[in-house]
Amino acid sequence: MQTLSTIGELQAAADAARVAGKHIALVPTMGALHKGHISLIERARSMADVVVTSIFVNPAQFGPQEDFEKYPRDLVRDSAQAQAAGTDILFTPDVAVMYPRGFQTYIDNNRLATILEGLERPGHFRGVATVVTKLLNAAKPHIAVFGQKDAQQAALVRMLARDLNIDVEIVVAPIVREPDGLALSSRNVYLSPEQRKNAVALHRSLEKAAEMVRAGERSLDVLRDTMRAVIEGGNPTKIDYIAFVHPETFEPMSEVDPRGTLVVVTVRFGDTRLLDNEILRNT
Amino acid sequence: MQTLSTIGELQAAADAARVAGKHIALVPTMGALHKGHISLIERARSMADVVVTSIFVNPAQFGPQEDFEKYPRDLVRDSAQAQAAGTDILFTPDVAVMYPRGFQTYIDNNRLATILEGLERPGHFRGVATVVTKLLNAAKPHIAVFGQKDAQQAALVRMLARDLNIDVEIVVAPIVREPDGLALSSRNVYLSPEQRKNAVALHRSLEKAAEMVRAGERSLDVLRDTMRAVIEGGNPTKIDYIAFVHPETFEPMSEVDPRGTLVVVTVRFGDTRLLDNEILRNT
Repeated sequence: MQTLSTIGELQAAADAARVAGKHIALVPTMGALHKGHISLIERARSMADVVVTSIFVNPAQFGPQEDFEKYPRDLVRDSAQAQAAGTDILFTPDVAVMYPRGFQTYIDNNRLATILEGLERPGHFRGVATVVTKLLNAAKPHIAVFGQKDAQQAALVRMLARDLNIDVEIVVAPIVREPDGLALSSRNVYLSPEQRKNAVALHRSLEKAAEMVRAGERSLDVLRDTMRAVIEGGNPTKIDYIAFVHPETFEPMSEVDPRGTLVVVTVRFGDTRLLDNEILRNT
Repeated sequence: MQTLSTIGELQAAADAARVAGKHIALVPTMGALHKGHISLIERARSMADVVVTSIFVNPAQFGPQEDFEKYPRDLVRDSAQAQAAGTDILFTPDVAVMYPRGFQTYIDNNRLATILEGLERPGHFRGVATVVTKLLNAAKPHIAVFGQKDAQQAALVRMLARDLNIDVEIVVAPIVREPDGLALSSRNVYLSPEQRKNAVALHRSLEKAAEMVRAGERSLDVLRDTMRAVIEGGNPTKIDYIAFVHPETFEPMSEVDPRGTLVVVTVRFGDTRLLDNEILRNT
């Protein structure tokens, strides 16, 4: 595995791979790699000749009150894990490489980024869209792999690739869960032992909703009330939202579409926000 | 010359050229081609193996009160001229190809786009930055050629290529002028015969400023007053601005920097806005 840290080096490596007829896959991460990330790297490995994993804690996607400073960082451990999972090129730019003096160009989404996580975290998706565009232009991949865990982010990235004519296939890989159902997240380390135990309520609420839809329930109010009760059993600090949306456009739905309705939940335990989601189907 | 009208066709042609080791140059235009555009195509021809000229009147860069509907369009004439100047691929997408249903992703610049033309034409540079990014991603050029005539646009494009890590060389070609000095512009056709005659005052004012700087003048107030008097001799409807800025960053200057100060002027004759600019140097 090669480790590169400048845009020019990565572009040169990408050009060389492309001239040699090789397919490139990019897995953008913020490090703190867990089994969810590993599954993305393995997916990339199975689809491409050259796997580029980027590790960059992107300041532009953190709000001023958020956890940019304390976000977990361990490059030595991440590097070993990325290599073991099949990374060929580890890209670890520093902030001055990604946002040089005088930086002033951003990617904005005026629909998807204005709802749900976009409302809860103003500026977050501007930061995500900008850094993802930069990483795509730096690694020039044929394929880029994102996790379904951040469902709205995955939809935003699909949309930006389409809207900006970026010639890349966006692959979205399924959520990886702990044995008790909690979705893996780099932020799970912030949970106290008690919060960690209670956090399983998110997944339980999704399972309950999926079961009700399979049994014929179509009312979003009924589903939301049931999910709320399940989550409140976990004693959360706050439920930010329980939303039912179109899985690709994130347009809000007024009742369950049995061909596929995405339900997303966001819950706080103390200062820690946890996200989870599931597609509800009638089969 | 090939004429293509979808993103997929153009990307396939670009991929084929790149695999064959050919260099691609892109010349983005809104059509209504004049000798200024021709000079850009010829410049591209001299630098690359494959010259892509795009013709797309981009609705996103026109304000609601602007001339999108009446902007001059003549694809048959433009096509012949583009071919004669050395175009290999003419790219003529329609609006639904560039802005499909549900389009929602834009490029914003939060510094350069907020001054001068950005103030006079709210949203203009968002439209320019978005369409240029899309065209770069569609044509995948090694080089893209822009005219110095739209100096702030050229600076904005350089900045977005740098900020978004787009692997392209931005080439800026000099202004082409009529024999009397008027900068060529597709909008010159809107001028009445009398306005056309008077419009030469823009270039005269720039020549006067350049001469004064060579003679040692450093005061922007003195230069601006002199230029204003020259332009007013042409009986314009309004002088929008006379501004002295850094040629690349467009940061305002407080006095002449003899290593290079860009002066930009924007003047209205009736409803027609004319732009011109020149770099002032002490030699």
